[in-house]
Amino acid sequence: MKFVSLAQGQLAALVGEQVVDIAAAAEYLQRQLPASTLSQLVALDDEHAAAVWDIATAAAAENIACQPYESATLIAPIANPARNIMCLGKNYLGHLQEVAQKMKTSAAVPESPIIFTKAPSCVIGPGDTIPASEQYTQKLDYEAELAIIIGRGGRDIKAQDAWQHVFGYTAFNDVTARDLQKNHKQFFKAKSLDGFGPMGPVVVHRSAMPSAEQLAVKCTINGELRQQATLDHLIFDIPAIIECLSAGMTLQPGDIIATGTPEGVGMGFTPPRYLKAGDEVVVEVTGVKPLVNRVA
Amino acid sequence: MKFVSLAQGQLAALVGEQVVDIAAAAEYLQRQLPASTLSQLVALDDEHAAAVWDIATAAAAENIACQPYESATLIAPIANPARNIMCLGKNYLGHLQEVAQKMKTSAAVPESPIIFTKAPSCVIGPGDTIPASEQYTQKLDYEAELAIIIGRGGRDIKAQDAWQHVFGYTAFNDVTARDLQKNHKQFFKAKSLDGFGPMGPVVVHRSAMPSAEQLAVKCTINGELRQQATLDHLIFDIPAIIECLSAGMTLQPGDIIATGTPEGVGMGFTPPRYLKAGDEVVVEVTGVKPLVNRVA
Repeated sequence: MKFVSLAQGQLAALVGEQVVDIAAAAEYLQRQLPASTLSQLVALDDEHAAAVWDIATAAAAENIACQPYESATLIAPIANPARNIMCLGKNYLGHLQEVAQKMKTSAAVPESPIIFTKAPSCVIGPGDTIPASEQYTQKLDYEAELAIIIGRGGRDIKAQDAWQHVFGYTAFNDVTARDLQKNHKQFFKAKSLDGFGPMGPVVVHRSAMPSAEQLAVKCTINGELRQQATLDHLIFDIPAIIECLSAGMTLQPGDIIATGTPEGVGMGFTPPRYLKAGDEVVVEVTGVKPLVNRVA
Repeated sequence: MKFVSLAQGQLAALVGEQVVDIAAAAEYLQRQLPASTLSQLVALDDEHAAAVWDIATAAAAENIACQPYESATLIAPIANPARNIMCLGKNYLGHLQEVAQKMKTSAAVPESPIIFTKAPSCVIGPGDTIPASEQYTQKLDYEAELAIIIGRGGRDIKAQDAWQHVFGYTAFNDVTARDLQKNHKQFFKAKSLDGFGPMGPVVVHRSAMPSAEQLAVKCTINGELRQQATLDHLIFDIPAIIECLSAGMTLQPGDIIATGTPEGVGMGFTPPRYLKAGDEVVVEVTGVKPLVNRVA
């Protein structure tokens, strides 16, 4: 099951290469509409997701309420998160080492997850522009990540139960101003500028999630491969992250957790290779269509 | 002009020692209701605040829709913030020094504001219980702060224009698990446990805001004074904070910014004096009624 959000925020599904407008499909098929937006669907149970998917596949079979993926205008799947995006810092060994080398910080593997947030207003969608932000930063960097979307909320969730709380996953680019990150110590400001959170395009439901070994995160800049890793290389894996975050803190449906970035960020190169106007940044996560954004 | 939120979130005003239910007062006076909640009012302009205040004073004069402050049940003025609360770290010299000594961190005055966030779900109101959270932390600490509430949103706000974007201020307790703060490096997790954000009770409108020298923040634990400072001791003052935060990042109506805590937190004592079940924590900010919470 794969879901996307159309230009006005309408819930849609991706069936093969066809984007199906769920409200239009439900009307044609005279089915009850389980949810109008992906944010609504995320807060419901798997049966609702299956009902939406059933509408989508039935409509796609009749070529009703469909348009080809390539011509559909999509926005970020959760374009207005209800609270800040939670992000893991230094959660791949290779990235931890490149940061330690460049920022003169510890290369020790963290004993506890490093968690910061990004303002919800930073979210942009596929095809949107990452602002070059030259008046704020001279060190604009990319961080390709897999982000999970919480379905069922909860508190004190144990690792073995964590997957029951995941709706699905998508691709995320944790765009970062490295100079602000250094100056401000805590990461929030450097990570939260408008446009610093490209997300999407597709949310893959948990039921279609590959194993961590088969789930790859990749980043190319102007076609050149910069980052590539599989999720089995996470220092804190997804169940561990959920157990940690939810300890004493209630997770809510629609919460977005970016799981960290592998090595190969611009800062890691000598000399550094920061983003500049005109660059095309592509984040790819297995099963999610490419998240393409240009810097301008 | 002073505003509060009643138990069901209804907008009310504090006129002298009387809490006036604005919807009930407007109905009695046959006036148009400018806003039903404080969150709505915050997003409107000063004329709407004045219109609410006018309804409140007229009703109070006739003893209509009034109840004594002491018997009113109030919740946090903004009980469900639309995004995370933004907080300043190490923004008073005395606190910076006590942190440096105890945490073995730098005592240098930060060149840029240190900004982290707390999950909106941590907010509790006056009289609510701060969870002792013994299964998560052995170092539960208090941080009395003045918090400002953004009225008019904006981006790239210059310091000289910053006050135009402030609706008002209130009291805030940035409750912190010191052990988690140390373990997780970034502060979000240690600051975001459920119940870690007592706020209120009163929002004082900007038009009634005293000068920084006359605006005091104070904390007592079981009646014993622990923290006391005036706002002129902030390292980064409120206009500077707003200029910094809004640079490249759009502030939104209802955003809450906690301005930092002065020296005297539990961690600063030798031996440390952390909170324990049964403690009564009172945060007082000039013009705001005491924010009283018990640990349990």
